[in-house]
Amino acid sequence: MSTLLHPDRLFSANATERDIARALYESISDLPLISPHGHTDPRWFAENENFANASELLVVPDHYVFRMLLSQGLRLEDLGIAPQDGTAESDPRAIWRRFAENYHLFAGTPTRLWLDHTFETLFDLHEPLSRDTADSYFDTINALLAREDYRPRELFERFGIEVIATTESALDDLRWHDQIKDSGWSGRVVTTYRPDAVIDPDFEGFGANLDTFGEITDCDTGTWVGYLDAHRKRRAYFKQRGATATDHGHPTAETANLSPGQAQALFDRVRAGKGGPDDHRLFRAQMLTEMAKISLEDRLVMQIHPGSFRNHSEATFTRFGRDKGFDIPTRTDYVEALRPLLSAAGMDPDFRLIIFTLDESAYSRELAPLAGVYPALRLGPAWWFHDSPEGMRRYRELTTETAGFYNSVGFNDDTRAFPSIPARHDVARRVDSAFLARLVADHRIREDEAFLLIRELSYGLAKKAYRL
Amino acid sequence: MSTLLHPDRLFSANATERDIARALYESISDLPLISPHGHTDPRWFAENENFANASELLVVPDHYVFRMLLSQGLRLEDLGIAPQDGTAESDPRAIWRRFAENYHLFAGTPTRLWLDHTFETLFDLHEPLSRDTADSYFDTINALLAREDYRPRELFERFGIEVIATTESALDDLRWHDQIKDSGWSGRVVTTYRPDAVIDPDFEGFGANLDTFGEITDCDTGTWVGYLDAHRKRRAYFKQRGATATDHGHPTAETANLSPGQAQALFDRVRAGKGGPDDHRLFRAQMLTEMAKISLEDRLVMQIHPGSFRNHSEATFTRFGRDKGFDIPTRTDYVEALRPLLSAAGMDPDFRLIIFTLDESAYSRELAPLAGVYPALRLGPAWWFHDSPEGMRRYRELTTETAGFYNSVGFNDDTRAFPSIPARHDVARRVDSAFLARLVADHRIREDEAFLLIRELSYGLAKKAYRL
Amino acid sequence: MSTLLHPDRLFSANATERDIARALYESISDLPLISPHGHTDPRWFAENENFANASELLVVPDHYVFRMLLSQGLRLEDLGIAPQDGTAESDPRAIWRRFAENYHLFAGTPTRLWLDHTFETLFDLHEPLSRDTADSYFDTINALLAREDYRPRELFERFGIEVIATTESALDDLRWHDQIKDSGWSGRVVTTYRPDAVIDPDFEGFGANLDTFGEITDCDTGTWVGYLDAHRKRRAYFKQRGATATDHGHPTAETANLSPGQAQALFDRVRAGKGGPDDHRLFRAQMLTEMAKISLEDRLVMQIHPGSFRNHSEATFTRFGRDKGFDIPTRTDYVEALRPLLSAAGMDPDFRLIIFTLDESAYSRELAPLAGVYPALRLGPAWWFHDSPEGMRRYRELTTETAGFYNSVGFNDDTRAFPSIPARHDVARRVDSAFLARLVADHRIREDEAFLLIRELSYGLAKKAYRL
Repeated sequence: MSTLLHPDRLFSANATERDIARALYESISDLPLISPHGHTDPRWFAENENFANASELLVVPDHYVFRMLLSQGLRLEDLGIAPQDGTAESDPRAIWRRFAENYHLFAGTPTRLWLDHTFETLFDLHEPLSRDTADSYFDTINALLAREDYRPRELFERFGIEVIATTESALDDLRWHDQIKDSGWSGRVVTTYRPDAVIDPDFEGFGANLDTFGEITDCDTGTWVGYLDAHRKRRAYFKQRGATATDHGHPTAETANLSPGQAQALFDRVRAGKGGPDDHRLFRAQMLTEMAKISLEDRLVMQIHPGSFRNHSEATFTRFGRDKGFDIPTRTDYVEALRPLLSAAGMDPDFRLIIFTLDESAYSRELAPLAGVYPALRLGPAWWFHDSPEGMRRYRELTTETAGFYNSVGFNDDTRAFPSIPARHDVARRVDSAFLARLVADHRIREDEAFLLIRELSYGLAKKAYRL
Repeated sequence: MSTLLHPDRLFSANATERDIARALYESISDLPLISPHGHTDPRWFAENENFANASELLVVPDHYVFRMLLSQGLRLEDLGIAPQDGTAESDPRAIWRRFAENYHLFAGTPTRLWLDHTFETLFDLHEPLSRDTADSYFDTINALLAREDYRPRELFERFGIEVIATTESALDDLRWHDQIKDSGWSGRVVTTYRPDAVIDPDFEGFGANLDTFGEITDCDTGTWVGYLDAHRKRRAYFKQRGATATDHGHPTAETANLSPGQAQALFDRVRAGKGGPDDHRLFRAQMLTEMAKISLEDRLVMQIHPGSFRNHSEATFTRFGRDKGFDIPTRTDYVEALRPLLSAAGMDPDFRLIIFTLDESAYSRELAPLAGVYPALRLGPAWWFHDSPEGMRRYRELTTETAGFYNSVGFNDDTRAFPSIPARHDVARRVDSAFLARLVADHRIREDEAFLLIRELSYGLAKKAYRL
Repeated sequence: MSTLLHPDRLFSANATERDIARALYESISDLPLISPHGHTDPRWFAENENFANASELLVVPDHYVFRMLLSQGLRLEDLGIAPQDGTAESDPRAIWRRFAENYHLFAGTPTRLWLDHTFETLFDLHEPLSRDTADSYFDTINALLAREDYRPRELFERFGIEVIATTESALDDLRWHDQIKDSGWSGRVVTTYRPDAVIDPDFEGFGANLDTFGEITDCDTGTWVGYLDAHRKRRAYFKQRGATATDHGHPTAETANLSPGQAQALFDRVRAGKGGPDDHRLFRAQMLTEMAKISLEDRLVMQIHPGSFRNHSEATFTRFGRDKGFDIPTRTDYVEALRPLLSAAGMDPDFRLIIFTLDESAYSRELAPLAGVYPALRLGPAWWFHDSPEGMRRYRELTTETAGFYNSVGFNDDTRAFPSIPARHDVARRVDSAFLARLVADHRIREDEAFLLIRELSYGLAKKAYRL
């Protein structure tokens, strides 16, 4: 019987390396999943309702999927994504057929690996998805999705998730997290403090956001001191809901460390809506350092995800809104950019800053050298477009020699595509097994070291780095 | 008997991968060559005269060859390249001997692979070129070049070329193309519209070029509207001679999309010779978007080849002129640069923009993410210095996971070195076979997919992308 | 018995490639070491006193070692590095134990390879260093270091060093070099002219340095002409002590070629302490070209090592001073930056400029294309953070296809860690053997070529490039 997944996938074709990789992988493949950074919806786990159907689970919400289809001439409307001025395909079977007919486009992409893994391990499908198998796939998946044991909490347990972090806006009331807690369910779902909406003056509704921020924290966000206090209180609120980390999605990695007087004057300009583009940029930069300083107090781990040019296609943004596949990486500098923040907090081993990049040229040039010396700094894993076999391999090849393994933080699945989570961890564990196997096979590390390391890369480092 | 070419060259040393690669390669090695972008001289095919001798065919005109010899201390004069104020070596045998004596310098370069392929398959030579074999090589090659079946049209057919595109200035009268057509010869040689001389205000004789442009199109190139009409008419003229594409060799990828009034004012300044460097830059940027808009009308495929710093050695440029090996790649940005053009035309699946790079750091960071979402955008293959086994491998490794295979456009030989064309396609087909074999061997794609893909990469995608 | 070093380390796991690599390596593994660029202390060879102990030899002075330990939370003080306002751990055994306990942090780094090589080949140690073996290591190493045959000169001979270059400031009196020469010892230790202290206006004490420079050369360094003469005389002084090269550690690769009048005016401003940051930058740039011009006279080989952001952590710099692991690579441009210097001297085959980079993205984009055409230009090997198996492999993969092997200059160990020198050359020779083996195994070069090339890469090119 044909199967979608080969047991030795992503290992080297060389028998020596493959055998070592297989042994390493088998030693950790059953470890629970630590998912310290992601974007699943906590409401799923709070309400535990069944997912609707294959298309709404796997096609409509997945930007990896629809961006590829769009690139080859399909229309977002035909994939179930409605423009603000119109309607979209409402028949999920029609959407699924379009996707299935074009499944060959994903050859060589991680999306293909993730989906095949989901198809085989979650839905017991074994023939390749294609025009011919579209309907049987659709029916099979829908039938399973309707079952009790395919509801979010049951999947969470089936996937072996030990802990998952979601990401919420600083303005979120975290009701779903409260509901999860109150439900008595044992699954560990924690939140992450994401304050972009109240830090970035270019965010839609920034002024009103700050008003709301003041109301929900009972702080005077009309003043610099009150504004910082609002962050402190809100972070504590998140921490009570399990948060161990903050996350910051800035356009660049720029940080600043102004004097208190300068910072206050900058805040006053920005708060009054009188700041220019340079003020906005500088305010974002300053706030990263402020967040680092508060992390020194409350020990929340800080994550910076810089370097994405958002909504590159204006027409698509106008018609369809955010997150439609048009966020494009840009060149990103770290050495000068991070210096003010690192000068303020980088030498403190109790502070933890995890830095990500979409610019792979910075791995060996800037990020590994920085992470290889600053006590507070750790390197986030290969991210977003680079969360793939080649991307992960390059990450290890380009960072390990300078930063070692212990300045990396294990794997982040970083996804809202819930069923892909086991697949993503599986890919990461296989790629790391293959990488370590190569080091063993050419005698750079010993086999006993590799077994310790694969456990750290698959499980231990993520728990430690995120204080989970 | 020693041979220069091993049948398994460029395949992996791993037996599993090699066997798959060999099978893939054998399935497509006899397919005709599609050469959609190159710089052969149409006069060769129009007149069909024999090439003069080995040195004038293989050494004197090939910048890959003489730049390497120059880098190790040889003089251009001694390689048959005359300075404007002097003379060059006129004995082709002396030139050939200098080249042969230094042939070891090319170890590890693609030039070596191309030349050995030419020596063995075209000239039936089997001993390595060296000082010892220089004369027998020279005599053998010259004897064959004098034969009827080694004339350009006969070589075209021997090489299995289905269609070749040359590149001509917008001011070219395309007489050789007309002569080919009138000759009744069945070989398909098409032109490509290259308007740099009438688009780039820094081009030598730009003002006079625009005058000529007006005369040959009967348009008033003194006005913005007339100038754009001249392009329209000239593109139609090229299209009648088979052109399916335009080509643009700008220093950067910058595009602009000014209002009609701004564009006209800019044209007026530039046309009057009153534009400064920023005007020149902006005019080039604006004209890329204008060309895209006209492509929406006439459906010519648009190619942008940015990022080369031309004539880096002033002394060499002054003495020897252009194209003497001193064009050096520079860092090139695409995300901001292409946005105006992509906003104007990038969402139209009927528009086709093929983008190239000399800055490999942009592959995974910018180009694959852009090509993986914009319907109009395709990625040109590894280009110029990167048209090599390692360069092509990196291209696939760095672009496939995000853009897939179907947003690439097959192979361009991009050469004026006519006899190297089969060798270049052979290298590309082998490297792609080896790449696909690796994906099969580590179970990322199925073998049946790989056979479909190698056919697309070797033949199908180029035809489709260039509408040939 | 367990050993730290496998005879096939760093060769491919593929048997075909490994067997070729092994044969190549064995053909050159006994060749003497050419060390044309490094930072050992000539005083060691002049006085030939025993090294103190394991910690002072291998931990305290090695920034690769202590930066990694620092990154994981250890304090410099606890590693024997004293702050300016305090004291450090004075017990070398305590330092050694801290290092040994954390030796696992170095898995996958070149430091680990170098140290294990030193432990096994120099100190006859065969069990992995760890908390358990810390004391026996410490005692064994110290006992050997106390022996006559472990003194610097005896190690020099044991290591098979044919010639080593040290690096001295232009202001150094070279007394240790004189003492070595006078001693009658046959070891060849040459100096290198490093004039940063009298070229970089931002160097501590620049003005006073120029006064001293005038005194020791008997030139009037108050004038531009006198200042240049001082360089000429000082270079001649270094040349008498064996120097064949100069070395320049600038923040960028920027060069300039001002008119004599402009240069003199710039010098006058800078000399008078009236130059701003742009003047300082321009003066450094101009001086690179001046050094090139003088190299045309005295034939000293010129080396430029650009692109390091020095002392990134201000706090560490203030407390501990320079060279504490906080020099971080930055993005570096070469195409525009080197053009003035290359215009002045780059076409002269008698001039030799060796250029290094910490920005690997420049290898294929800028440096290989430049080195592949300019007669004067050669590419320095993978440097500093990239002096590692993966770094060296990338260097060859990214430069060879465009620049060939003969525009590279062999290996530089670039170290002050004397016992690591054989290990570093061994790694380089193995990585190059493996790289050539891959080219042979996939039939890009012939085996007989590979044997010639490995000899050049391991020995010949360095001697020729540095005129040693």
